[in-house]
Amino acid sequence: MIKLYYEKGTCALASHIALEEAGAEYSTMRVNFGAGEQRSPEYLAVNPKGRVPSLVTERGILTETPAMLAFIAQSFPKAGLAPLDDPFRFAEVQAFNSYLCSTVHVAHAHRLRGARWADDPAAIEAMTRKVPDSMAACFDLIEGKMFRGPWVMGESYTICDPYLFTIARWLEGDGVDPARFPKVKAHRDRISERPAVRKVVADQKA
Amino acid sequence: MIKLYYEKGTCALASHIALEEAGAEYSTMRVNFGAGEQRSPEYLAVNPKGRVPSLVTERGILTETPAMLAFIAQSFPKAGLAPLDDPFRFAEVQAFNSYLCSTVHVAHAHRLRGARWADDPAAIEAMTRKVPDSMAACFDLIEGKMFRGPWVMGESYTICDPYLFTIARWLEGDGVDPARFPKVKAHRDRISERPAVRKVVADQKA
Repeated sequence: MIKLYYEKGTCALASHIALEEAGAEYSTMRVNFGAGEQRSPEYLAVNPKGRVPSLVTERGILTETPAMLAFIAQSFPKAGLAPLDDPFRFAEVQAFNSYLCSTVHVAHAHRLRGARWADDPAAIEAMTRKVPDSMAACFDLIEGKMFRGPWVMGESYTICDPYLFTIARWLEGDGVDPARFPKVKAHRDRISERPAVRKVVADQKA
Repeated sequence: MIKLYYEKGTCALASHIALEEAGAEYSTMRVNFGAGEQRSPEYLAVNPKGRVPSLVTERGILTETPAMLAFIAQSFPKAGLAPLDDPFRFAEVQAFNSYLCSTVHVAHAHRLRGARWADDPAAIEAMTRKVPDSMAACFDLIEGKMFRGPWVMGESYTICDPYLFTIARWLEGDGVDPARFPKVKAHRDRISERPAVRKVVADQKA
């Protein structure tokens, strides 16, 4: 059975929702960042990067949200979570998720994880100060150029949707008013009503 | 025909090599960053992010290196550039490329692109100073935990290889001695001898 390592409030939520939407049999294991469990020898044996999510499968361990989301979509094709038979449409899905991973998530990480990229406390504070602007610039692009509606890719719900939902939930904490992005805000509300999303959000709160 | 927008010295090299390895018919168009062409209205119409690479196909435009690499592998299956029939192995390829995109490339970008994440010049300098350490930490992980050899994924050359090659070429400029990573260094030498790689590197120098 698949096992997902996650922490509350992290991007692992996207894969958790995708597993639920796919109808997968899976279990979850919380990695308590507050207790430093992501740096424990036990967890580093699972994921030497010391981050979440990690997905333990019978074939081995996977990391990196875009890779895990595509794996879930391909492993449970009946769930229809990606256009698997069309390399161009599949690449559009992957391009969106790659942007979330390498640009939007990175912009967000400069609020609390600045020590990854500078040692000087003043520099780390300067990074934190810019997060509202850089996150808003990302969501301007998503709202204006990338989001199709009603779902990210248009009429079909895909693995882009739980990932956008996950990162859009960080806006308030990052000092950005979601009301600036009406399509993204409506998407966040719409997806929140899906049974799989309600269940996973409740599970992670428990 | 496929058209690749690239700039010299950027991650677009990975997709350029993959197109050549795939035997694709394609053309290239340089986007001169020194002249600010990535911010021209013409180029922003191609890629509103103002970055390279972009891949113009008959179906539409794709961005984001991991997505483009998977698209090339799926569009030219005879080239055998990814384990397309095995979702787990394919996910391993994608996880490696996602790590390069979202962590290694991002670490590198803090040398010259710090203004993305802070406005204070002193903070931007502090970011630049940390790049040798953060890039070395990434390559420690690649060398010790991720690279299988002789190619990234083992016996088969995949879309991970030109991408690692592309980013490993940045080490010296980032203040890291490649000799610290013997497997990565040998890989860089090995891949440099492939006809497709020699051709593309020469084309980009021209």
